Amino acid sequence: MALELYWGSGSPFAWRVMLTLEVKGLAYQSTLLEFSKGDHKAASFLKLHPRGKVPLLKDDDFILNESLAIMAYLDKKYPEPPLFGTSPQETGLIWRTVMETEAYLLSAGDKVIRPVFFGKGLDETEKIQQAAQAVRQELQRIDRELSGSTWLVGRQISAADISLFPLVQTILRAAGKDAAKSLKLELLPLADTFPNLSAWVRRIEALPGYERTYPPHWR
Amino acid sequence: MALELYWGSGSPFAWRVMLTLEVKGLAYQSTLLEFSKGDHKAASFLKLHPRGKVPLLKDDDFILNESLAIMAYLDKKYPEPPLFGTSPQETGLIWRTVMETEAYLLSAGDKVIRPVFFGKGLDETEKIQQAAQAVRQELQRIDRELSGSTWLVGRQISAADISLFPLVQTILRAAGKDAAKSLKLELLPLADTFPNLSAWVRRIEALPGYERTYPPHWR
Repeated sequence: MALELYWGSGSPFAWRVMLTLEVKGLAYQSTLLEFSKGDHKAASFLKLHPRGKVPLLKDDDFILNESLAIMAYLDKKYPEPPLFGTSPQETGLIWRTVMETEAYLLSAGDKVIRPVFFGKGLDETEKIQQAAQAVRQELQRIDRELSGSTWLVGRQISAADISLFPLVQTILRAAGKDAAKSLKLELLPLADTFPNLSAWVRRIEALPGYERTYPPHWR
Repeated sequence: MALELYWGSGSPFAWRVMLTLEVKGLAYQSTLLEFSKGDHKAASFLKLHPRGKVPLLKDDDFILNESLAIMAYLDKKYPEPPLFGTSPQETGLIWRTVMETEAYLLSAGDKVIRPVFFGKGLDETEKIQQAAQAVRQELQRIDRELSGSTWLVGRQISAADISLFPLVQTILRAAGKDAAKSLKLELLPLADTFPNLSAWVRRIEALPGYERTYPPHWR
């Protein structure tokens, strides 16, 4: 039986899993849930995942949610290339980066992305700009870490890169929207603000299979 | 060189690492930072960890923050007993539980714990009760998962249990405070509300070394 991925276009969390599948060269069946049609809250999907969220992976009878858990599962089942490190230090540093993405960039990024994409709270300029400053601080730190190294941890792409990348792309997309113009987020152009991060983004965009992971409604 | 743990009394995140060290039977040096004295924001500590947070692990020259990253590091370096599963399915389920704790119980729990412990926002009764309802929903789900099984995933204690436990204890402690009495959180007594969860708490409290991990200022 094939792996089956339930995903939604533009979900950074689903994007993580798609990148993982491509990096590991795994074939999978893809089920696109349309958020606008409420597919993720339909009874048939809630039966698989009561929280009604993507991504969800089905591997025969085994069903798993939470993007990082799916990545850890796939890495344990298909160890090559290893995404969570080969030494204790690499493993520790990869998970640190993953968890710092969750703890700091995700919450700050969300406060920028949501108003821009959905219009709600877009007039709370000060709040958004405070969040944008926190985003810049995190990206600044990451940009520094990437000076002189190709990937965030170790000598090859890891879960640290894969879990961060879709979130960075989503933040950049929000920053480029018309609705963001007057907000002065100071994130673009990325090559000027954070050149090492920008090169890292291009590096991931050049990975084989990348195009298959790109959110279709972003084209 | 010994492992050196920087921690703070009552930090559920530091508590996770202490439980990990005890379950693995690892000796460590302990450096208690006193939050009330601002030890975690002192220049000497910020040099080790610019975010000024606990836990922080020092292993010779290797320094690591983020509780889950430290747990993954220790598990890779000292594999027995394995805390992140031995099969792909166990690994996936353990990380799912860990990440659901982070994504759902932590944020809801925080909105109950903070007002009760620190008094700020304690008059926003409705907001706290909404959060308490979300907490109860998560604990209900966990209680169901624990019916008929000793540990959350697999046949032995894992990172799923260890990462959840300190948060549960912290929520229960908040629920038992005088300040919480009028809030009607409906969490206590745990043995009545969530009997399987209650038995699981007692099981962890009975682990060898548990007493050494108990927050000193809670006694």
